[in-house]
Amino acid sequence: MKRVVLSGIQPTGKLHIGNLAGAIRNWVRIQDEYKCFYMIADLHSLTAYSNNYKEIKENVLDIYIDLLACGIDLSKSVLFIQSEIPAHTQLHLILSMITPLGWLQRNPTYKEKIIEMQDKDLSNYGFLGYPVLQAADILIYRAEKVPVGQDQVSHLEITREIARRFNHFYGKFFPEPEPLLTTSPKVLGFDGRKMSKSYNNAIYLADPPEEVLQKVKKYVTDTKKVYKNDPGNPEHCSVFPLYGIFAPEDETKQVDKGCRSGQRGCVDCKKRCAELIMESLKSYREKRQYYMKNINELKKHIKENNEKAQAVALKNIREIYNKVGLIYG
Amino acid sequence: MKRVVLSGIQPTGKLHIGNLAGAIRNWVRIQDEYKCFYMIADLHSLTAYSNNYKEIKENVLDIYIDLLACGIDLSKSVLFIQSEIPAHTQLHLILSMITPLGWLQRNPTYKEKIIEMQDKDLSNYGFLGYPVLQAADILIYRAEKVPVGQDQVSHLEITREIARRFNHFYGKFFPEPEPLLTTSPKVLGFDGRKMSKSYNNAIYLADPPEEVLQKVKKYVTDTKKVYKNDPGNPEHCSVFPLYGIFAPEDETKQVDKGCRSGQRGCVDCKKRCAELIMESLKSYREKRQYYMKNINELKKHIKENNEKAQAVALKNIREIYNKVGLIYG
Repeated sequence: MKRVVLSGIQPTGKLHIGNLAGAIRNWVRIQDEYKCFYMIADLHSLTAYSNNYKEIKENVLDIYIDLLACGIDLSKSVLFIQSEIPAHTQLHLILSMITPLGWLQRNPTYKEKIIEMQDKDLSNYGFLGYPVLQAADILIYRAEKVPVGQDQVSHLEITREIARRFNHFYGKFFPEPEPLLTTSPKVLGFDGRKMSKSYNNAIYLADPPEEVLQKVKKYVTDTKKVYKNDPGNPEHCSVFPLYGIFAPEDETKQVDKGCRSGQRGCVDCKKRCAELIMESLKSYREKRQYYMKNINELKKHIKENNEKAQAVALKNIREIYNKVGLIYG
Repeated sequence: MKRVVLSGIQPTGKLHIGNLAGAIRNWVRIQDEYKCFYMIADLHSLTAYSNNYKEIKENVLDIYIDLLACGIDLSKSVLFIQSEIPAHTQLHLILSMITPLGWLQRNPTYKEKIIEMQDKDLSNYGFLGYPVLQAADILIYRAEKVPVGQDQVSHLEITREIARRFNHFYGKFFPEPEPLLTTSPKVLGFDGRKMSKSYNNAIYLADPPEEVLQKVKKYVTDTKKVYKNDPGNPEHCSVFPLYGIFAPEDETKQVDKGCRSGQRGCVDCKKRCAELIMESLKSYREKRQYYMKNINELKKHIKENNEKAQAVALKNIREIYNKVGLIYG
């Protein structure tokens, strides 16, 4: 039997190429090897109250379409909406009873986020407990693997600890989920910072070709390459990493060579880069348009996939309730 | 339309006469005037992990029978099991996102309990958040009244504050529940401390007559009344308050008089007290026996009542999810 994978993404709006090169390509890649549950984590997006909450619904649909268009295959994977599966909150409550406060208060991510997101009020009970909700998200499907980058392995540790503690108190039920290490290139936005919706520096998958070109033009290339035929250093160029993501390996090598030798100018290089992005998004664009026109089919998929997730979650929550001494059903 | 009341009791096992004189008589009394939702709060009993968790199921059934036997009338009220209604945990999560940590950390009951229950490990995330779960219990039925004693009015304040905050952020939906002030005599156990299961000093509703008598005999009467015909002071006697609960007013007055005048001895007085307790529990005993023999009928009641609670909770959680920007259903 295939091992179970759980991963999620917050519905912060349309996906950008940073999301694609990061999480999403990995999601698509592992669909044959694992039984994947992919979740649109709308409950997590309530963690910090924001006046934009009215956009959540729209964002959920947008990202659902984006994920299908990127290649999430519903004949292999389950793509569902977190808030539709009550068992996440049921398990969250159970786990909250056995999670020591200290684990949460000492959680480094908690402290970082509080500092990082000073514009939002994070001093609420739910934000302190977001690792408990994450643990519930993963454990309710008894997932054995969670795709994470090397820098996020520690995030998974608290889920493993909570699983261990539950098993110790109530008898073995949860696997201790292991990281499924994925590599994802760091994608910069056109202002040189990490690509992020909140920095307003992202190339969106759904951007029209003209806009993609305009955005690629804004990237800073090697500042020492002033004239077209000056030799440049791709390591100091913020466009070059995009080739790593969207170009065949051969072409990337040629670009590197052409830049260093001064045979390749930045203007042409950016144009070609935008072309490559557009080419590799061709199938995405077609599928996106298809679902935008066939909303009823989309809704049917959502409903069916929520039901698939619900069936697994319900079976497990029954067993969990039984283990902790509750009647249920 | 009748106003909605919510109240709950933890399934800590069979009810004792302290529970009866306290919460339960009030529950029975207000059934005509209000639309009452009475909850067996089994999720709350997970707050402090205990090795006795395997008893929860049994305790839930025991207390359900006790409550029916005491006069909870299912044609008027809904008597349900908290863990069977997932919307409690769904709302708990939503409310956790808007409840400031400081409110919970400064909650006087939280501090008291931590000190009071030093034998249990309460340093977990769920225990800090128990007022959030209480708020969800109350608000998911949009209850307007919560029966509390004068000393518990402050417990309800945090629910009112959470309701107010939700309404402020997301638009008015919850009433701010008001205390339904109830008087309940303080009932002492036979060791002179407050009657409590954990002190092992309680007279249980289900105790057989012989045991009730044995327990009443253990109560300390006025220590200055050494011989039968010495005058005594009922205010210094721990049996006399039981008359206040179980005897007609006239008889209580006579007992007071007889004690003070030295005409009434403590041995006879205790015997009569035990008789009165047994008499007033006659109908309770019959009903309890009936349900013990008709477990299938009991289970049918439980199922139907859970469904009634579920119907209301589900309708409300849909509206709540919609208000906070989630899709749901």
